[in-house]
Amino acid sequence: MIRHLINTRDLSQEEVIGLLDEAEGYLDTKHRNHLKGRLVITIFFENSTRTLSSFEIAVKRLGGEVVRLDVSRSSTTKGETIFDTAANLNAMSPSAIVVRHKNAGVPNLLAKHTSCSIVNGGDGAHAHPTQALLDLLTLKRSLGRVEGKKIAIVGDIRNSRVANSNIELLGRFGMEVILIAPPHFMPKTNLRQHDRLQEVIGEVDAIMSLRTQTERHEHPIYASLKDYASDFCITKELLGDRKIALLHPGPVHRNVDIDDEMLKDPRCKVLEQVTNGVAVRMAVLRYLIEGSAPTLKIEESA
Amino acid sequence: MIRHLINTRDLSQEEVIGLLDEAEGYLDTKHRNHLKGRLVITIFFENSTRTLSSFEIAVKRLGGEVVRLDVSRSSTTKGETIFDTAANLNAMSPSAIVVRHKNAGVPNLLAKHTSCSIVNGGDGAHAHPTQALLDLLTLKRSLGRVEGKKIAIVGDIRNSRVANSNIELLGRFGMEVILIAPPHFMPKTNLRQHDRLQEVIGEVDAIMSLRTQTERHEHPIYASLKDYASDFCITKELLGDRKIALLHPGPVHRNVDIDDEMLKDPRCKVLEQVTNGVAVRMAVLRYLIEGSAPTLKIEESA
Amino acid sequence: MIRHLINTRDLSQEEVIGLLDEAEGYLDTKHRNHLKGRLVITIFFENSTRTLSSFEIAVKRLGGEVVRLDVSRSSTTKGETIFDTAANLNAMSPSAIVVRHKNAGVPNLLAKHTSCSIVNGGDGAHAHPTQALLDLLTLKRSLGRVEGKKIAIVGDIRNSRVANSNIELLGRFGMEVILIAPPHFMPKTNLRQHDRLQEVIGEVDAIMSLRTQTERHEHPIYASLKDYASDFCITKELLGDRKIALLHPGPVHRNVDIDDEMLKDPRCKVLEQVTNGVAVRMAVLRYLIEGSAPTLKIEESA
Repeated sequence: MIRHLINTRDLSQEEVIGLLDEAEGYLDTKHRNHLKGRLVITIFFENSTRTLSSFEIAVKRLGGEVVRLDVSRSSTTKGETIFDTAANLNAMSPSAIVVRHKNAGVPNLLAKHTSCSIVNGGDGAHAHPTQALLDLLTLKRSLGRVEGKKIAIVGDIRNSRVANSNIELLGRFGMEVILIAPPHFMPKTNLRQHDRLQEVIGEVDAIMSLRTQTERHEHPIYASLKDYASDFCITKELLGDRKIALLHPGPVHRNVDIDDEMLKDPRCKVLEQVTNGVAVRMAVLRYLIEGSAPTLKIEESA
Repeated sequence: MIRHLINTRDLSQEEVIGLLDEAEGYLDTKHRNHLKGRLVITIFFENSTRTLSSFEIAVKRLGGEVVRLDVSRSSTTKGETIFDTAANLNAMSPSAIVVRHKNAGVPNLLAKHTSCSIVNGGDGAHAHPTQALLDLLTLKRSLGRVEGKKIAIVGDIRNSRVANSNIELLGRFGMEVILIAPPHFMPKTNLRQHDRLQEVIGEVDAIMSLRTQTERHEHPIYASLKDYASDFCITKELLGDRKIALLHPGPVHRNVDIDDEMLKDPRCKVLEQVTNGVAVRMAVLRYLIEGSAPTLKIEESA
Repeated sequence: MIRHLINTRDLSQEEVIGLLDEAEGYLDTKHRNHLKGRLVITIFFENSTRTLSSFEIAVKRLGGEVVRLDVSRSSTTKGETIFDTAANLNAMSPSAIVVRHKNAGVPNLLAKHTSCSIVNGGDGAHAHPTQALLDLLTLKRSLGRVEGKKIAIVGDIRNSRVANSNIELLGRFGMEVILIAPPHFMPKTNLRQHDRLQEVIGEVDAIMSLRTQTERHEHPIYASLKDYASDFCITKELLGDRKIALLHPGPVHRNVDIDDEMLKDPRCKVLEQVTNGVAVRMAVLRYLIEGSAPTLKIEESA
């Protein structure tokens, strides 16, 4: 059976644990040969530095080949539907296609038109499953044990696929997720909600700041970024000397999402998240393509 | 002697047979090492999804390296001629350069400025030799034997490099090519011509529908795509239950070139053509670069 | 200690000699495995055909992996600073990042935000160290010995990073550098200056023509290219039958920088420079990444 990763629910608790264990093994950044002779196609319909590079590095570090589709020059600009594009790519027998698209649901539909694994690199406001996996890995490595711990997610939660995937995954692993946002950024949910981080700062173990996503809204939605920042920017003053892990999916709006001081603080895990991202994507790709349970018997390159 | 593939006439009948045999061996999609340590440069001056990806996958599946030139960012935008660009690329010692250009004759001229193999990935309305080879392979696999069989090519034949290369190659292999097009799309030729597919549908073994190429004409040339479709779209109604193989070089204009029903029909070989395309390009690149006769002694990856 | 190559002064005389020796060994264009399992990221903020391709081919010819950042689609367009971009890339554990940027000093600043080697692929009017190295290699191969020889650099010297790096490196290796330019292109320097090449043509062993860089000036700076060419274009008439090696970093403005006749002349080394460029970049990347002294014990691919 072909396995896809469209959202975090596609993975059982046991599978997630296995993948994160495997990912930790990959943090040595050594070259492997698990995907030798395997081809992965990347096709990103939204701008991306880190996610696209992270997936491509993951494939190459496993010994596989990448062909990147340059979307701006592809046949989809000739009016071909994305499903025909996918069916065509699939006919070239890749082992997996990694896709990012501004419309929620695209990776799921592609999975119905292909016979290879589809990995969701982010679709609209729906899901970003590898981001949630790397966040969970980062939290485990920072907090030791995540069960029973509390995390505040701060920012434009309603429009965030990162928040969406994390709410599902972190909740499933026993974290209490508290949402901090102005009313128009707050989703409908049963989770605890606050409109100021100050109200919960004394009880949380971690904070996940979200990017102020000006590009995914058609109309300006911040009265002013400065006003937003004065309410929601994560500052050193706010955290004091509390033992709190600070995450952000990047790219960070400096002094809007997180201030310069906190970005330099060792409690800020932003670059660790990037490092963990490559490792998590290695584990995901290997698992989906080889189709076998995660394992730590990792073959090393000569 | 350096060998190029500018148009189908560059290959003898015997060579074509050898290449198609070799290509069939590659349909297992296994990784090979024929081009290990060899470099192929791709430089496409026209948009392309499948042809560019197909060539790059072909190189990688043979163990070779690809460097893709991003034309929109290259020195040709600084006013350098394409011949100077080619001479410069050649000086970096690639084994082959694959080029697509909107002007007929560019690959032929490049071949005079380089000491590596030039592969034509499509030039203007002139030639698209790997497309004709993959079409011939698809026809052989669908029809068994092509000699004495009849194929109708339908659409904007006069402006089509796909039609041009196929007319030469299929004719040489004993197929009768019948042209179906409105008068302004009909080339000057001795081949049988009809302006309605209905007139020959009872006698053909295969149909090759061409893409309505709106982008290569400066002025709109269809009074209306709807009118064009009502005359030339390949429909299930038109084919009935006749045993006819349906080809199209892609991307297909749905319900203009071919209707949705026929695209789902097993007689439609569009995705098989894509699969065959990678295999044919593997054979072509191996042959041109290694310079030896096609052979089926195919080394497999570990 | 992490080594960078920001400008030619980063290399001792002994190191340069070792690198050029190693580069000459790579002129066989054979595939090596020195960088097997190593990742190099290329990120070019200015258009480039030959330098970007040259670096990527160099990595691949050494068995390494390349991930190319498509700058126009990257997060720097989302307002991320180049330093945050670099820190993020660095967190993915590449062995080196090759960067080109229109602002002088960017590679140097990046080197302070990363723990991998930074290679300067050209920064503003500051430096282009691999170009100077390949030029020195080309001169050594053309002239035999460079010490005591004279080279005229001709053109927009003040705005040229190529001139800048060559003046430092060639001077250090004992060449007399003579500058030929109109007054507004002449830098402040103690080197001999002339405003006509005719005045020194009888005494020089080599000429380095520079590209008329219209794209790096905001305002037109040539009264007319034709007038410029009549004074500074390198013509066959000008050189006569003198034994002079002619270099140019490319792309050449035909009949502005160098005329068609001289470009065909065997004294013109433009394509040799391109070939040497790949070899020099192989040596530089291997040296910076492996961190060991250049050596000629070059492992060959199977």
